[in-house]
Amino acid sequence: MKEFFKVTDLQTVLEYRTKFPQVKTEEIPLLETVGRILAKDIVADDDLPDFPRSIVDGYAVKGASTFGSSESNPAYLTLSGNIAMGESPEIAVGPGEAAQIATGGMLPPGADSVVMIEHTQAIDDTTIEVYRSVAPGQNMIAIGEDIKKHAVVLLKGQVIRPQEAGLLAALGRQAVAVYQKPVIGIISTGDEIVPINETPSRGQIRDINTYTLSGLVQEAGAEAVSYGIVRDDFKILFEKCKLALAQCDMILISGGSSVGARDFTVDVLSALRDAKILVHGISISPGKPTILAKAQNKSFWGMPGHVVSAMIVFSRVVKPFVAHLSGQAADQKKELRLPAKLSRNVASRQGRIDFIRVQLRLEEGRLWADPVLGKSGLISTMVHADGLIEIDINTEGLDKGAEVEVIPM
Amino acid sequence: MKEFFKVTDLQTVLEYRTKFPQVKTEEIPLLETVGRILAKDIVADDDLPDFPRSIVDGYAVKGASTFGSSESNPAYLTLSGNIAMGESPEIAVGPGEAAQIATGGMLPPGADSVVMIEHTQAIDDTTIEVYRSVAPGQNMIAIGEDIKKHAVVLLKGQVIRPQEAGLLAALGRQAVAVYQKPVIGIISTGDEIVPINETPSRGQIRDINTYTLSGLVQEAGAEAVSYGIVRDDFKILFEKCKLALAQCDMILISGGSSVGARDFTVDVLSALRDAKILVHGISISPGKPTILAKAQNKSFWGMPGHVVSAMIVFSRVVKPFVAHLSGQAADQKKELRLPAKLSRNVASRQGRIDFIRVQLRLEEGRLWADPVLGKSGLISTMVHADGLIEIDINTEGLDKGAEVEVIPM
Repeated sequence: MKEFFKVTDLQTVLEYRTKFPQVKTEEIPLLETVGRILAKDIVADDDLPDFPRSIVDGYAVKGASTFGSSESNPAYLTLSGNIAMGESPEIAVGPGEAAQIATGGMLPPGADSVVMIEHTQAIDDTTIEVYRSVAPGQNMIAIGEDIKKHAVVLLKGQVIRPQEAGLLAALGRQAVAVYQKPVIGIISTGDEIVPINETPSRGQIRDINTYTLSGLVQEAGAEAVSYGIVRDDFKILFEKCKLALAQCDMILISGGSSVGARDFTVDVLSALRDAKILVHGISISPGKPTILAKAQNKSFWGMPGHVVSAMIVFSRVVKPFVAHLSGQAADQKKELRLPAKLSRNVASRQGRIDFIRVQLRLEEGRLWADPVLGKSGLISTMVHADGLIEIDINTEGLDKGAEVEVIPM
Repeated sequence: MKEFFKVTDLQTVLEYRTKFPQVKTEEIPLLETVGRILAKDIVADDDLPDFPRSIVDGYAVKGASTFGSSESNPAYLTLSGNIAMGESPEIAVGPGEAAQIATGGMLPPGADSVVMIEHTQAIDDTTIEVYRSVAPGQNMIAIGEDIKKHAVVLLKGQVIRPQEAGLLAALGRQAVAVYQKPVIGIISTGDEIVPINETPSRGQIRDINTYTLSGLVQEAGAEAVSYGIVRDDFKILFEKCKLALAQCDMILISGGSSVGARDFTVDVLSALRDAKILVHGISISPGKPTILAKAQNKSFWGMPGHVVSAMIVFSRVVKPFVAHLSGQAADQKKELRLPAKLSRNVASRQGRIDFIRVQLRLEEGRLWADPVLGKSGLISTMVHADGLIEIDINTEGLDKGAEVEVIPM
């Protein structure tokens, strides 16, 4: 008699993440770092800027020289010179003096602020009128105002966005230590599956999961390696799994929605050296028949065979494991959601999390989420869907008009 | 006397997109298509599936053979055989008959539905009891239920997500016609700017904009080509612009926040063959001193020099042009936003759109948007920011507690 397996709740599954080690690190050129994960904290070697910089076109002055000036009562200042861009000024600015400066120029010694050119008028070659007072520090960036010397400016585990790349440029980092991209192997199984370059006979279909999963792996910032289609043969699948385990940081076996195929996957995974089945079913729908094994410290997933289920399981279950492997620090606040209003009632069952495919529709300036109906074997339903809504374990369903947050997919 | 320039509103600027031709197309392998833009409509050559498929483990039957069956009054069916995966069944199912089938198997002639194995019991080698009735069409996918033959399933201009790649796999498309990635040249100017591998002297700073803009270009799905730093010399900049124009689909000149530098950029752009300045300032803040020229049918942008302004202008102004060049169909509904509550009052000015940098904070289960203060020359403010909020042209400011939508950056 077959043992019944006990499903695991999603939260418990996700907590297994930390059982798996992160990938190695490497140094790469700064221009290639966007989207990668920092492997070391970044400390500023210097103040940024390391000189006082004007942020307007105008005249560098001592603020006190302009106090009380107005259109009707301008201050008269003596021009002490012109500051060249990119050079350390040789002139100084004393009380009652001004030096012409452009945006980005370095304030000369003595100057503590910049009066904008719009608030001045040149009287002759050596004198200007100033119509507004400026406070010390105004219209300039002080030394260290952007970044202070010795400050920890970026943290290990942060995703490098364009602005982090900019900061690294400002600090002169030409090469940056990042985590390697995890390598994720994809093995497709099933005697009814044929490669996409073949014309399926009756009863056969082309391999879809390799392509949807590869795309999801790439979007998650990892590298996908396809191991092709493996017939339902213990020895062949076992050897392929061993090979993938030696070459990859994580493996996805896709296909096999039948009970027999699932049992078969479990048998193969259990036979690998140093292997343990951690999860045999998850209380989510779709995606219940998902298997997670740990083999030689790597995660090995038995994905559901239906294409929709496999995509949803990747997005909601596997992807957080990929983020962990990649060295990414957990960051809940930035998971993007689209707020929308539900256009019809949706049923769900207590005791499991339901993920509902929805299509978005812009109407009267707001987004509506229209549930996409259809069996989880239909790829067309994912093509029509813009994302998912999640109905939690204690909710029986959602009413038409409910405010929902759509997880883009 | 210098001419005053008239700023253009953002909507008008964005409408200039269609003045620029889209890039060429190419054929690439299916595994590399995720994130790319389809260059042709995709029509299904065949029904998908082209045979009736079981989506459960059980017995293929005529539904009528099970009508009225229950636990207390099971239907008795005669086993006509076992269906092998990936093969066209040689048996047929008549009234009162059943054929064992696994998930993904092809229904034999005569069968119109599948009864789940959980709702049956084998009595002996040739007879099963059925405890529930199934309707014709139940637990199976009919011919063409996923995709109908000759249907237009994907449209030119669509972004290929993992699910579109899966659909293309199902249709056997090994190579896919997509738009090329636009090539975007980045020229950095300013006598105070030094390459990141140099140690700046007093008065100099390292080139930040090349790195932030390259990152944004890559995130927008285009290819960034850096032309390095060009001194403020008309002839040198003019020659560099000519070169970039010959090699790229769009060019960004960054740097030059001073009035002199802006005038200089305009002079260089105007001198290019077949060139016209379309926009000389936009009614947004930051980002007002943005220049758009059209030269030889390509867009040439004079970006603001301050790093924050340049990033915001790319994200809110240039990026839609990149999408247009890339062949992407306009799709408003999928621009991602994070709903949040504003944590303090924010002032803005009527007559322009204000973009406010905000940091997100998760507190009591909801997101708060904390405005990030600081001058637009400070890269650190973008590092602290998770995104922007937009205050429209007719609003004077937003109150603490206002519901806002954060544009991720």
